[in-house]
Amino acid sequence: MFMVYLDHAATSNPKPQCVIEAMSHYASEGSANPGRGSHPLANRAARLLFETRERLKTFLGAEAAGEVVFTANVTEALNLALFGLLKPGDEVLVSSLEHNAMMRPLRLLEQQGVRITKIASDPKSGVIDLKLLAQSLSTNTKLVAINHASNAFGTLQPLDAIGELCRQHECLLLADCAQTAGHLPIDMASAKIDLLAFTGHKGLLGPMGTGGLIINTRAQKNGIKPLILGGTGSLSESENQPEFLPDALESGTPNLPGIAGLNAGVKWLQQQGINRLHQQELALCQRLMVGLSQLPNVRLIGPAMNAPRTAVVSFVIKGMDNGEVDDLLGNQHQIYCRTGLHCAPAAHRALGTFPEGSIRFSLGATTTAEDVDCAIAAVKAICTATVAADE
Amino acid sequence: MFMVYLDHAATSNPKPQCVIEAMSHYASEGSANPGRGSHPLANRAARLLFETRERLKTFLGAEAAGEVVFTANVTEALNLALFGLLKPGDEVLVSSLEHNAMMRPLRLLEQQGVRITKIASDPKSGVIDLKLLAQSLSTNTKLVAINHASNAFGTLQPLDAIGELCRQHECLLLADCAQTAGHLPIDMASAKIDLLAFTGHKGLLGPMGTGGLIINTRAQKNGIKPLILGGTGSLSESENQPEFLPDALESGTPNLPGIAGLNAGVKWLQQQGINRLHQQELALCQRLMVGLSQLPNVRLIGPAMNAPRTAVVSFVIKGMDNGEVDDLLGNQHQIYCRTGLHCAPAAHRALGTFPEGSIRFSLGATTTAEDVDCAIAAVKAICTATVAADE
Repeated sequence: MFMVYLDHAATSNPKPQCVIEAMSHYASEGSANPGRGSHPLANRAARLLFETRERLKTFLGAEAAGEVVFTANVTEALNLALFGLLKPGDEVLVSSLEHNAMMRPLRLLEQQGVRITKIASDPKSGVIDLKLLAQSLSTNTKLVAINHASNAFGTLQPLDAIGELCRQHECLLLADCAQTAGHLPIDMASAKIDLLAFTGHKGLLGPMGTGGLIINTRAQKNGIKPLILGGTGSLSESENQPEFLPDALESGTPNLPGIAGLNAGVKWLQQQGINRLHQQELALCQRLMVGLSQLPNVRLIGPAMNAPRTAVVSFVIKGMDNGEVDDLLGNQHQIYCRTGLHCAPAAHRALGTFPEGSIRFSLGATTTAEDVDCAIAAVKAICTATVAADE
Repeated sequence: MFMVYLDHAATSNPKPQCVIEAMSHYASEGSANPGRGSHPLANRAARLLFETRERLKTFLGAEAAGEVVFTANVTEALNLALFGLLKPGDEVLVSSLEHNAMMRPLRLLEQQGVRITKIASDPKSGVIDLKLLAQSLSTNTKLVAINHASNAFGTLQPLDAIGELCRQHECLLLADCAQTAGHLPIDMASAKIDLLAFTGHKGLLGPMGTGGLIINTRAQKNGIKPLILGGTGSLSESENQPEFLPDALESGTPNLPGIAGLNAGVKWLQQQGINRLHQQELALCQRLMVGLSQLPNVRLIGPAMNAPRTAVVSFVIKGMDNGEVDDLLGNQHQIYCRTGLHCAPAAHRALGTFPEGSIRFSLGATTTAEDVDCAIAAVKAICTATVAADE
């Protein structure tokens, strides 16, 4: 079936073959529950868990494998960080471009007495106002929680500078790396990220159902409470939750086939080289933006072509309803993308596209120049038809 | 590789081939994020989600597909029910055989002012004392939370009678069906279960990383709070969590390949017939118990052969350390089982096997008479060697 898949910001597709194979190999060669038995299959499962933690530690620049806590997705990872850390009276600073995975838990915490301050961003690029951020940091600020790259517009935030400010003001930095892990090189230590939330099924090329939160020792000192308590395969004699990582925050049977796939996805990225893949994605993004910018009535939204960004391109076509464009793209041209608010109403408010949202093309490791050219041609055909109809 | 897998209470193995195929088909034929795009792949994902909810509704006797909330495992489902429902001042009654997935969240809630009462059980079978339960129900009792079948001993609790008591006393019944869903027929409506927590990777034969909580309208009236908030693909314009099910309690990208596997697993059970499979498991359980009971020094623990039970058989060998037996079973005889406390210290206390625990053989839909005979022969060899060494 012909299709051009430009919805990598929702989930990467296709996954490398090794990811599918790792999942089904794991599931068919005998699954077993890690840490809940001592037979060889259970030991193999435990080794796979450890190997994947170790690989993610290396790939994302964490301090230790034990700091990698697996979750079902980045949403759970963000909830774990926010509910685990914040108490009534604490203040959190966020950017204006947060996803609802950040904002919805925060709005609930706000009702419980946590203070939320949104820092304004550049109305065109969406980049956070660093001066304003620095001014807003106070002794009550427990956390700066920030979307590393906007899922709606591709805006890349200056994490290094933000991390530096957090250290100066003795608060923690939580980075929502849903759109960046696997798309660009990340080093937790040098970016001074204290808590890194990631998803397994986007840039990291693993299957849905995987993700995690990496918590450095600086953040651990705050004593993060679990979201979910239960059997951990450790300290089974006690009805109280263990206090050591990762067990303290990881209860119940983990998604082992998913983690096998995630391990294979990250290994594939390591073999291909994240720097090379990143440059390739940026070059295709540039090709896409150049092509779209030459079309009549297309208005690109978000950071400029050469500004810090990911390969997520949002646009609208003047005089056309986004839903109608989406329908034409998907059903007439087989360009699969995502249109609307992208679960990020804050971001669309910040960049002036609320409530109608935008059309989003998002690229990934397997996107080709042909994909991009097809997408441009499709938008061109839609625009041209509109112009013709108007005349 | 020769092995006899008797660790189905930890996870079922092997999975039916259709489960592996559904997972890898889903992951390789183009994964997409349901409800987060309108292109055909996203629509297919949304249909798969709905079909699986619908299938589970039918299979477990729920009222509506929308009541089925997917979680990463049964532990998350129990946490969702407990933290979602209970407030300081509420009372919960539990059996004496609960898993730590129930007890660990409850111990935390106890610190916050929820009152926990453990109802005593028969010291041999582990069956809850119904008279005591009836006497303990008060106007403060919000919830009776009970392990449908013990993961440690196979004790099956009389849910129908418990459900009836709960209706009389206007409290809710939460059933932890981790060890029963897919092993025996369950009908939520007739058993008067208000909240049913299940795991996907045990009796239901799906992959790890799947599970859920089914919440009937009676329980919904209490307004269950989410554990995790975030993007739901619905009401994207709002920074507040939607209030309708399943979206209210299901945030972030679901484990679609896992759910595809779970759907295939339940379909397989429907095709094979749950009643037939249940009788087959019980017959093999009986064969195992007869065989073990004839061996010198073997002491079976838990409900009698013909008492209400699942095919989980716990035992100890007098004069031998459980760990040593486990090691001999796994490494000399390739019998893969699980030894220790099974994340259920309460159950082992109740039946007098704390802190040393027991050796557990747990059977599943793919267990054969040969598997059972091999296991008996292995235990016999171990026992005989011990007896010989003693002489």
